[in-house]
Amino acid sequence: MPLGERGGWDKSESRYCGLETDFNDDMPNLLSFNLSTAGFDFLLATLMDPTYRPSLMESSSNGACVLPFAGSDLVLSPSQWSSHVVGKISSWIDLDSEDEILRMDSETTLKQEIAWATHLSLQACLLPSPKGASCANYARCVNQILQGLNSMQLWLRIPLEKTDDDSVDSDQTIDSWELWNSFRHLCEHHSQLSVALNVLSSLPSANSLGRWFGEPVRAALINTDSFLTNARGYPCLSRRHQKLITGFFNHSIQIVISGKSVHSLPGASLDSAANHTDAQRHPLRPYLDYVAYLYQRMDPLPEQERFEHGYRDFLQSPLQPLMDNLEAQTYETFEKDCVKYIQYQRAISKALLDRVPDEEASSLTTVLMVVGAGRGPLVRASLQAAEETGRKLKVYAVEKNPNAVVTLHSLVKLESWENIVTIVSCDMRHWDAPEKADILVSELLGSFGDNELSPECLDGAQRFLKQDGISIPSSYTSFIQPVTASKLYNDVKSHKDLVHFETAYVVKLHSVAKLAPSQPVFTFTHPNFSTKKSNQRYKRLRFEIPSDTGSAIVHGFAGYFDAILYKDVHLGIEPSTATPNMFSWFAIFFPLRTPVCIRPGSSIEVHFWRCCGSSKVWYEWCVASPCQSPIHNSNGRSYWVGL
Amino acid sequence: MPLGERGGWDKSESRYCGLETDFNDDMPNLLSFNLSTAGFDFLLATLMDPTYRPSLMESSSNGACVLPFAGSDLVLSPSQWSSHVVGKISSWIDLDSEDEILRMDSETTLKQEIAWATHLSLQACLLPSPKGASCANYARCVNQILQGLNSMQLWLRIPLEKTDDDSVDSDQTIDSWELWNSFRHLCEHHSQLSVALNVLSSLPSANSLGRWFGEPVRAALINTDSFLTNARGYPCLSRRHQKLITGFFNHSIQIVISGKSVHSLPGASLDSAANHTDAQRHPLRPYLDYVAYLYQRMDPLPEQERFEHGYRDFLQSPLQPLMDNLEAQTYETFEKDCVKYIQYQRAISKALLDRVPDEEASSLTTVLMVVGAGRGPLVRASLQAAEETGRKLKVYAVEKNPNAVVTLHSLVKLESWENIVTIVSCDMRHWDAPEKADILVSELLGSFGDNELSPECLDGAQRFLKQDGISIPSSYTSFIQPVTASKLYNDVKSHKDLVHFETAYVVKLHSVAKLAPSQPVFTFTHPNFSTKKSNQRYKRLRFEIPSDTGSAIVHGFAGYFDAILYKDVHLGIEPSTATPNMFSWFAIFFPLRTPVCIRPGSSIEVHFWRCCGSSKVWYEWCVASPCQSPIHNSNGRSYWVGL
Repeated sequence: MPLGERGGWDKSESRYCGLETDFNDDMPNLLSFNLSTAGFDFLLATLMDPTYRPSLMESSSNGACVLPFAGSDLVLSPSQWSSHVVGKISSWIDLDSEDEILRMDSETTLKQEIAWATHLSLQACLLPSPKGASCANYARCVNQILQGLNSMQLWLRIPLEKTDDDSVDSDQTIDSWELWNSFRHLCEHHSQLSVALNVLSSLPSANSLGRWFGEPVRAALINTDSFLTNARGYPCLSRRHQKLITGFFNHSIQIVISGKSVHSLPGASLDSAANHTDAQRHPLRPYLDYVAYLYQRMDPLPEQERFEHGYRDFLQSPLQPLMDNLEAQTYETFEKDCVKYIQYQRAISKALLDRVPDEEASSLTTVLMVVGAGRGPLVRASLQAAEETGRKLKVYAVEKNPNAVVTLHSLVKLESWENIVTIVSCDMRHWDAPEKADILVSELLGSFGDNELSPECLDGAQRFLKQDGISIPSSYTSFIQPVTASKLYNDVKSHKDLVHFETAYVVKLHSVAKLAPSQPVFTFTHPNFSTKKSNQRYKRLRFEIPSDTGSAIVHGFAGYFDAILYKDVHLGIEPSTATPNMFSWFAIFFPLRTPVCIRPGSSIEVHFWRCCGSSKVWYEWCVASPCQSPIHNSNGRSYWVGL
Repeated sequence: MPLGERGGWDKSESRYCGLETDFNDDMPNLLSFNLSTAGFDFLLATLMDPTYRPSLMESSSNGACVLPFAGSDLVLSPSQWSSHVVGKISSWIDLDSEDEILRMDSETTLKQEIAWATHLSLQACLLPSPKGASCANYARCVNQILQGLNSMQLWLRIPLEKTDDDSVDSDQTIDSWELWNSFRHLCEHHSQLSVALNVLSSLPSANSLGRWFGEPVRAALINTDSFLTNARGYPCLSRRHQKLITGFFNHSIQIVISGKSVHSLPGASLDSAANHTDAQRHPLRPYLDYVAYLYQRMDPLPEQERFEHGYRDFLQSPLQPLMDNLEAQTYETFEKDCVKYIQYQRAISKALLDRVPDEEASSLTTVLMVVGAGRGPLVRASLQAAEETGRKLKVYAVEKNPNAVVTLHSLVKLESWENIVTIVSCDMRHWDAPEKADILVSELLGSFGDNELSPECLDGAQRFLKQDGISIPSSYTSFIQPVTASKLYNDVKSHKDLVHFETAYVVKLHSVAKLAPSQPVFTFTHPNFSTKKSNQRYKRLRFEIPSDTGSAIVHGFAGYFDAILYKDVHLGIEPSTATPNMFSWFAIFFPLRTPVCIRPGSSIEVHFWRCCGSSKVWYEWCVASPCQSPIHNSNGRSYWVGL
């Protein structure tokens, strides 16, 4: 039974709560008590008798012995097995032990249990946490299993904070993220290997926790002893724990209650008989209730987030509006972004007021050209700005897409703008304008600012801007920041070619850990009448990863832009200054062919180039420190924007 | 004119000597003076007037200006250009300068000069050394050039020892190898990017120098001021320099004399008129003469090295003698290896003496079985051992290859061994022997010891060995060591697939830098009558790189074996204990998918597994430190040996 409804939430976004149980060979009863009676949604159930050791079996039994699994496959229906049981692999296994017998027993048992779980069509198995700092043999064995696995997921249990009990030097706390990082590197970032985080009573720093949201975390096991007790004696969680659980809900991470009840439940016995059901007698029911309460009290998703929900972490190729003509559907979508046009209208109003003093408002007509007018939203914003400021306007609407021009014509007719608006069906780079403009309005920005070739287009268009004319936008800057993004990395990798690793993608970033604040990359200012101007750019950036993050892995760079439309009116998606409620742009993602590991408190140096050829513009990028990556996308061989 | 002949050397192995010259627009005279007159073989000649700067050219000249190259393409014949001139790119270029104009000028000039060199069909161009510690923009530009280059090589000039002149902190000497390593990483190990080492008067440590022999060094520029003066006033080199130059000769690295004459050449003017030719008047001729002298006095290549010369650094797939039957040619080659059979004969003799006391020599017949008898060399060695020791022998020669059995039969007939030798045409794992053996002789070893499945074969064969019987070999151990091997890495990479990166190759290692002494990996002992024995193995090794090596790159692991035939008689290819003059085995090479960089004085941890399935045996390997590699060859998906 899901954790109840959350306002404005899609049914498909229901969240469930599981329970970790000990070995019990009466599976039907185990399910009945914990699910039907207590209300948990699934069990994390031990599959094999924990006393089993292959080396202790009679080798002479010659096929007569039966492996001590918890019941046969027939004790539950196939759908019960697959929907309600996640298999828990024997926790005693230790493939990196010094003891060779234990190592051999562990490998045999692990393979037998996975084979059994596969036979039962379980959706996932929980692998016990690696015992020591080294996990190569464990990873080798799991990697072998992954090569031939059906669709089952393997969840590697990782304690959120791990202290090395064996270590004499008490400073030597192992960063458990590093354990995961080693393991998944050894297993080549296999997409069926994911994490089950074990949440304990103490939590690492927020930066350290943040890394996990870029990782494939599928479940969070909350130990009962990480709960506090509220005034009425019921379990509750610290504010930091609550925030973490909310993060898990937001990232579709399953919650699992683990451990024995540590609360005496005063309420249960005092409740009135009417409410006193079996369910409430289950000792762990109060923990489930509390998790459900946390879920239900979450704020509903805002409209924009709901709209963008389906795009989360989904890689899209950036538009090529210069080479390709946009489709009606695309115009339709972008024109709905009121916030953007309000910002344009504010910028145009300010420019009109600056350009035309009040006393000349009725005599002076400002020539405004919208270059890349599309189906007309910026024409409308311009006319509204004129009306708002009481300035007289003459508008040229220049658009290269003949299909959009059709719509533009009917808009002008419909709105009776014929005397004010002249439609020009032409590429702005080639138009022979009949007069010069006071204001040049354009919206040619991509997620990374210049990546839809706004600089090249406006270089062409500024021919018909007066020397003292205004360009809206007057400048724009791209930004990047290093991110952990396992999901994106695996999606890129799944294409198994170089091209996809050297391509930038438009993507609604969600399961991503941002490792350092973003920094500016390239800036373009318009108009730029310098004779020596070039649109080539080269930038070298160094990002310091906060030392309390611990080690981190960089799968690539998230890119954004911020545009100054006019004076203090800006527009952008750079996280710290992003224009609220604007949905026209997702971020851009530049992948790295090989993820880069960063040591605690250390930095990553990255170089970005914007290169221009005769028929295309492209980016190249590389990491120079802590290790050198190859230069990505040399000569734009994999990804480029056509002129 | 080559540097003369070296004893026992192939003509194709002639060595040449070049000369670095300053800019001179009279190319014909430059060639005539330095090559025809003085005797150098080629010039490293500046292509462009060093005062040229693109930004200083009149931008209004509108195509009227000519780039200031050293003469037109017509001043030399095409073959003169391509055989006698290596282009030297303007040494002032600095693509990583803070000065943007200089950066832009540098990029423009570099591209113009490379285009000119391509036009002239030069075989190579020398790129100036990166100016500072950072070289990303330089590498980006060179990488762009490499993407579209014809067959021309680019030699990056790297000083053998570089001190950072700009550095305030005098301890901060830059390891110039790191500069090269950064550059080539950024350029993805491109096969046309190589090194021209600039040898100066001081040399780094032997370990530091050793790294370069695993790199694609094409030329060594010897500065005249690195020469000393001998008693007669002539230039000569220190012993360490001499040794280095000899190393260059052995690795086909071209020598280039660089700089002005710093010796007053007393001999030149005192020489008798008869010898007083123009050639001797060239101020740099004594340097050339000295280099030629060093070449000519080198020892001739030993017979075995000459035989193996053609196999140097050439990747071969290991034999699969168990799955495939060897061909006659293969038997022919291996049977020529006298040294190997002498060792076997010594081992068998010792075993016979131990087994049969002198007093029973005439009464006791020892049963000896040669398993994998091939065409009979071990049968012969056994009979010779019997003769040598005066022991009586009964020999069974077991061979699975029916084609080899044909030869075996005729050998036995030819040598009249019919009464002593019984031929058994059967796989040793399935043979039902009529009696048990005292001595089991086999030679089933691969370059990595167990990699041709000797353990599995002998497990099958030991059924018919007496409980107190002797196996020859009695044990064997594999060894590995980390190596720099650019050539091998690039050859593996050229296949552009995963399979080749997860395959072990048999290879005559030559252009390889061995970074640490080899360490034992897996040992097998025979006979092994334990009931719990397994041929699976797991080994974790840590190699310390000597701290005076500096940083290093590991492209993979060189593998060897050593076998104890009997007591103190061993046989093997592990470098420190290798059996001299034995040529049956080259080393084995396990590549890494991503080369691993090791910081100075640091170590590399590697894990190797020998895994056994029902129909195959395979290795898996990974690097666990300083960073995690993926596990290579999981489940033997890329490389395995069939049972």
